[in-house]
Amino acid sequence: MNQKSFPISQEALEKIIAKYPTPFHIYDEKAIRQNLRRLFKAFSWAPEFREYFAVKATPNPRLLQIFKEEGAGADCSSLAELMLSEAADITGEKIMLTSNDTPADEFQKAIQLGAVINLDDITHIEYLEKNAGMPSIMSFRYNPGNLIEGNDIIGKPTEAKYGLTHDQILKAYKLAQEKGVKRFGLHCMVISNELRTEGFLLTASIMFNLAVEIKNKLGISIEFVNLGGGIGIPYRPEQDEVDLEAVGAGIHKLYQEIMEPAGLGSCAIAMESGRAITGPYGYLVSTAIHRKDTYKHYIGLDSCMANLMRPALYGAYHHITVIGKENEPADHVYDVTGSLCENNDKFAIDRQLPKIDIGDRIVIHDAGAHGHAMGFNYNGKLRSAELLLHEDGSVELIRRAETIDDYFATLTGFDGALIK
Amino acid sequence: MNQKSFPISQEALEKIIAKYPTPFHIYDEKAIRQNLRRLFKAFSWAPEFREYFAVKATPNPRLLQIFKEEGAGADCSSLAELMLSEAADITGEKIMLTSNDTPADEFQKAIQLGAVINLDDITHIEYLEKNAGMPSIMSFRYNPGNLIEGNDIIGKPTEAKYGLTHDQILKAYKLAQEKGVKRFGLHCMVISNELRTEGFLLTASIMFNLAVEIKNKLGISIEFVNLGGGIGIPYRPEQDEVDLEAVGAGIHKLYQEIMEPAGLGSCAIAMESGRAITGPYGYLVSTAIHRKDTYKHYIGLDSCMANLMRPALYGAYHHITVIGKENEPADHVYDVTGSLCENNDKFAIDRQLPKIDIGDRIVIHDAGAHGHAMGFNYNGKLRSAELLLHEDGSVELIRRAETIDDYFATLTGFDGALIK
Repeated sequence: MNQKSFPISQEALEKIIAKYPTPFHIYDEKAIRQNLRRLFKAFSWAPEFREYFAVKATPNPRLLQIFKEEGAGADCSSLAELMLSEAADITGEKIMLTSNDTPADEFQKAIQLGAVINLDDITHIEYLEKNAGMPSIMSFRYNPGNLIEGNDIIGKPTEAKYGLTHDQILKAYKLAQEKGVKRFGLHCMVISNELRTEGFLLTASIMFNLAVEIKNKLGISIEFVNLGGGIGIPYRPEQDEVDLEAVGAGIHKLYQEIMEPAGLGSCAIAMESGRAITGPYGYLVSTAIHRKDTYKHYIGLDSCMANLMRPALYGAYHHITVIGKENEPADHVYDVTGSLCENNDKFAIDRQLPKIDIGDRIVIHDAGAHGHAMGFNYNGKLRSAELLLHEDGSVELIRRAETIDDYFATLTGFDGALIK
Repeated sequence: MNQKSFPISQEALEKIIAKYPTPFHIYDEKAIRQNLRRLFKAFSWAPEFREYFAVKATPNPRLLQIFKEEGAGADCSSLAELMLSEAADITGEKIMLTSNDTPADEFQKAIQLGAVINLDDITHIEYLEKNAGMPSIMSFRYNPGNLIEGNDIIGKPTEAKYGLTHDQILKAYKLAQEKGVKRFGLHCMVISNELRTEGFLLTASIMFNLAVEIKNKLGISIEFVNLGGGIGIPYRPEQDEVDLEAVGAGIHKLYQEIMEPAGLGSCAIAMESGRAITGPYGYLVSTAIHRKDTYKHYIGLDSCMANLMRPALYGAYHHITVIGKENEPADHVYDVTGSLCENNDKFAIDRQLPKIDIGDRIVIHDAGAHGHAMGFNYNGKLRSAELLLHEDGSVELIRRAETIDDYFATLTGFDGALIK
């Protein structure tokens, strides 16, 4: 069991809402910092541990700046994400470009920033060389095929579009070497939102053995092994969080068994966690604006799947707290809906909750990753603001809410535009 | 079998691309106009036929203007959609607001525009009165519950968040009457992307009988019955398109049998088709930028699920044409992917296609509805331009592509912003 709490009192929340109307996302800076420190500590045994925050999870430069202060870098997979990192003063090898089906401008920007470039395919070596030139350091993304059993989120590796096969990856290092690259890393990302320790150990074991094979066959001493992200969070109260310390210790043991004897004892360990860093410490705060009783009981919020798409997209569970009613019995059953003209725009289906009144503040938990980031403007819905809760209780606006003018921005300013 | 063709020659397409780089959506004005005329013709028997285009399908005011020229109005379900309609000079009763979980500002704007207001719940009468005042004409959305079997897209009506029950709808008309409303319509929308004639006839039969019941019990002569949208399109080549003429004739017969004998022979018929109007006549045009051979064969496009989400979201089939290779054998099997850092970002899985070379232009069919409209900025992806193909072959930019500045717009211009 994990406790789903909200770090702001009802009184303080009302003061925030008076300034920033609902809906909004709010992130708990203190908890995020502590969380990052815990991750670094779990891997403090490593000669060097690097966390590249997966920017796509929560692409806000103010948050990236906090991650940077805690020693983390940025895992980018698009031009815009590279520019977000640059805006947060994260540059050079603090950036890892892990992209697929990569356009030329993305490689060019990564080269300009001095990023570590992680290639998704053997053909990308030539594409990179031709369009942006070769970097001083690069890595390749390994797809272990049948060596790892997929889970139902990331699918089976043999059906994943990512990475190079075993044969290809050996050829790729050789080819890059011939083209003058001297420093190399190794990358893998095969699990997603995983809670079990074993998944991470299996990945590490495969990767460490591959690093040794690369050393033996090609004479390349890999500088870092990036184990990817994939650390899950317990969305449901009855789930347990990942035992980060056990994951760290288990990977340490494998490192001692596989890497050190092979002379790879100075190899850095890297991860690209996103969800695990911010997910539990971001909240979507809404207001109940309608109650409807037809064949079921519905509570309508002032937010919708434009603010948080996971329930509609994946049927994902997100815990809900009714502010001020934390201790009341959950003796009502509601579908909690948004206003999108899509029947799957529901934050919860048949959820047991306290009686909800119009005007109640509704907190949707675990919205700190893949929440605001996945928002769309479908049905003319506007994306909400993002707030940062500081340790002293003060609140900073770190992204303003969209306006109708933003929505109309691509419809104005060119010949033939209809808008007057 | 329906023919999946593309209305632009290879030579003309290259000229368009020279000016507007891929990816982009392009809409065929002539085909869309013909299609709308066909819909109006299928219902020309009605004393009055109204088509309110479902704005969410393709929310571009230039297209709305074309619909207006053809006699159509706009079906809106958000403030932004009301403003898009206004921008296309569609106002008054040419707008129908069919919203759910409706915020106050949406009702206020609809009242200001003189729109027909269609209420989703009985409690919305008071909410509307309090927040915006009562309109001169309104309708209610009926949820027939167990009277209609749901399909797997719209779900079962008893589990749908939309509409009023039978008991509620009778009470709602009475309540609205008491509040001084004198003109009424009746609305229903229970099927989605349906190809079979029977679905539309069943809806019409239920609605006509309800209109008669309302007349008999409350003395209200319904001015219009809005049968909703839901006309599907044949995404797969082996599917047949909806027999619009048979749907029109079948509904005519029911109208003669049910409405006319009850003295409702001057009641208008309305629909709110979206997908059926623009869906088949919009194309996502992309370029193949990568080919990858690992455990499967992949073709990477310069577009991604930010441009068309239906395959990733619903596993939907969208036909693909490789321009210039229409007559070559489909003897290769590819996964056609986008560049999003999500493994489900695939436009097609195991699709038989001609051999694709880098630089080939790839047309994804049936992207004219719920295509650009559902685009998001996840992973820092930018939404593409929209073009309109005129009958004379000329092309008009009707929405510019997003830029990085658009992406950063909500991160600048407020205190505490990190961006320099």
